[in-house]
Amino acid sequence: MNILVLNCGSSSVKYKLIDVDRKVTLAEGGVEKIGLPGSFIKFKLPDGEKKTVEEPIPDHRKAINDILNTLTDAHYGCIKSFKEIDAVGHRVVHGGEKFNKSVKIDDEVIAKIKECYDVAPLHNPVNMAGIEAITELMPGVPQVAVFDTAFHQTMPKEAYMYALPYDLYEKYGIRRYGFHGTSHRYVARRVCDFLGVPYEKQRIITCHIGNGGSITAVKDGKSVDTSMGLTPVEGLMMGTRVGDIDPGALTFVMDKEHLSTKELSDLINKKSGVLGISGISSDMRDIEAAIARGDEKAKLALDMYVYRIIKYIGAFAAVLDGVDIIVFTGGVGENQQPLRKSVCDHLGYLGVKIDQEVNAVSRGEEKVISSADSKVKVVVIPTDEELMIARDTEAIVNGRQPE
Amino acid sequence: MNILVLNCGSSSVKYKLIDVDRKVTLAEGGVEKIGLPGSFIKFKLPDGEKKTVEEPIPDHRKAINDILNTLTDAHYGCIKSFKEIDAVGHRVVHGGEKFNKSVKIDDEVIAKIKECYDVAPLHNPVNMAGIEAITELMPGVPQVAVFDTAFHQTMPKEAYMYALPYDLYEKYGIRRYGFHGTSHRYVARRVCDFLGVPYEKQRIITCHIGNGGSITAVKDGKSVDTSMGLTPVEGLMMGTRVGDIDPGALTFVMDKEHLSTKELSDLINKKSGVLGISGISSDMRDIEAAIARGDEKAKLALDMYVYRIIKYIGAFAAVLDGVDIIVFTGGVGENQQPLRKSVCDHLGYLGVKIDQEVNAVSRGEEKVISSADSKVKVVVIPTDEELMIARDTEAIVNGRQPE
Repeated sequence: MNILVLNCGSSSVKYKLIDVDRKVTLAEGGVEKIGLPGSFIKFKLPDGEKKTVEEPIPDHRKAINDILNTLTDAHYGCIKSFKEIDAVGHRVVHGGEKFNKSVKIDDEVIAKIKECYDVAPLHNPVNMAGIEAITELMPGVPQVAVFDTAFHQTMPKEAYMYALPYDLYEKYGIRRYGFHGTSHRYVARRVCDFLGVPYEKQRIITCHIGNGGSITAVKDGKSVDTSMGLTPVEGLMMGTRVGDIDPGALTFVMDKEHLSTKELSDLINKKSGVLGISGISSDMRDIEAAIARGDEKAKLALDMYVYRIIKYIGAFAAVLDGVDIIVFTGGVGENQQPLRKSVCDHLGYLGVKIDQEVNAVSRGEEKVISSADSKVKVVVIPTDEELMIARDTEAIVNGRQPE
Repeated sequence: MNILVLNCGSSSVKYKLIDVDRKVTLAEGGVEKIGLPGSFIKFKLPDGEKKTVEEPIPDHRKAINDILNTLTDAHYGCIKSFKEIDAVGHRVVHGGEKFNKSVKIDDEVIAKIKECYDVAPLHNPVNMAGIEAITELMPGVPQVAVFDTAFHQTMPKEAYMYALPYDLYEKYGIRRYGFHGTSHRYVARRVCDFLGVPYEKQRIITCHIGNGGSITAVKDGKSVDTSMGLTPVEGLMMGTRVGDIDPGALTFVMDKEHLSTKELSDLINKKSGVLGISGISSDMRDIEAAIARGDEKAKLALDMYVYRIIKYIGAFAAVLDGVDIIVFTGGVGENQQPLRKSVCDHLGYLGVKIDQEVNAVSRGEEKVISSADSKVKVVVIPTDEELMIARDTEAIVNGRQPE
């Protein structure tokens, strides 16, 4: 069964065509700078060669049209017609409290996704643009929505409530939702398969560390807490996001700098984090290079970044009353061996022991990096949100519950 | 040596006259509603009887004048003249980065305290009013400033920096300072004396849990992290303070409710926390009573309150790479046995074991509440900030370094 997976951002669409039965990616690529000068589509040819075609792409409908044409192109394509696409799976960022799992898209689902615009004004409307484009371009094809928030809907109330007046929760749905749910769910399940242990009986801390980052506590197969909140700005220090901060510091900086809420939001989402501290870059590879040159603020940025990961792992170890498995995933988590070492060196009290040699050579592959006598298994699992979306889509289209 | 300890709030002054050598409190009391209708002074008579005198008290100078008159009153007093007060110790809330320990007050110190008005606009000016009143009323008496923030000045940079653009730290001093430092310092030292272990070689987590609350990680005698930040609103859920919250939730609620920064500040400082969730009270005794009546929001407030203590203990256990001693102090920490039990029941993974029977009867007294085979000592230590201030004052006046 061939599933087209779409991930629509505000000015981009990423796609993957996956043959779920054979677990093979038939095609992948993306459109960038939608509605901006210099928009283009890029994709991998069947022989692995990468190709970029610049052309005006004013909106998501045109972007998805181009993707479909590329997939069926006589020269570049891997399928002959749209009919070889059995279903489309969409990443939808915010399911609010309305969705605790992936669902087949119908009018009712569309209405509910729109009801969540309020809490995800930048994300859900563009996800919806993708759904509408497919509805128009491929009428009748089954579509499934897979939510970033759904996995975290199992959090208990003491974990998801903020201590604001209760009526603000009732009026506006202000609470912790969490994100990266598809990634956390994928790696939590996958690590158990990989280790041959039952998913429903583990205390797992999944660390999705990339340009954005979040950490989740998974108990007996359910998310019980996660570091991101109502929005993705809470929690870890990120590439450009501030993460946890004194609420009083925000009103203080607004007063001092005469910032509107929009300006504050830009500050804490786009100008803070690793970029804000280092003044150099949001990319940890640039930071490591700067540290090698002796840059002190780059070193501080890395120290803060690592420190906050340690604090969250510690907090969630307490939430879970101990931990059986720690998973590292995401661009940084999969590839930055020194960061994994720095984090784990602080976790001796949990019985964590890293195999330094194995860790030092593990990049982007599934690997146990703890030593044989470590009480906690520490494992690198490259995430695969698209595969998870494709699997959910296949299951739902075939009338089964997704995993 | 008799030390007068003064703790000036915006509309109150608390005082204690302590004979440091004999460790005896000679007199204690306070003035409330300064500058408001119904202002009064209350104090304990030498025989233990409490007395309240209502009278107009327009400002801090009059309040302190009344306190001094009460202390020397022929009928109510315990001393004959001001000359029997050898020194005055002042609680000063914010020492910024300027003070890492208690200091003798002189013109330079006064200037520096005033430079910290910016980060503590509600507190430092009233603390200064107390200093100025004493200078006027008791010319020549040595005065010492003891800062809430000083103990935390040993935090490493990765613990105290927020991930905002670095120049906001340089321009405005936006960083974590922490509060309750005198209390955390007192109980951390005291618990080591009590247990007979060396203070400089312990990993201690001190939980100051009251209407305000903060948790501190103390390593080898130094504060290395604490839950309060630039302001006291960060960290734990408190009586009326929101504690940790998604920064994105704050801009969201400001936009929805059309709040100014002043109104947001009121919301998160005065209307949130236990009061905001329960809708009943900020006092945990009222919450326990409401839970007994079956009130669900009161139950949620308690669950959230406990949950956040657990998360901080977990985070700081990771920061310390393990923990030797956990201390409970503050009004709630010293007296609410069920809360201590709920917290410790989640910490089995650290080797924490509570002696249920001992815990159940321990209220407001120094007591080890962990069982003999607990890997971590859990201890109740009633805090005594006034004694700590008096001791610092005595040491400095006598030319010694405070502890």
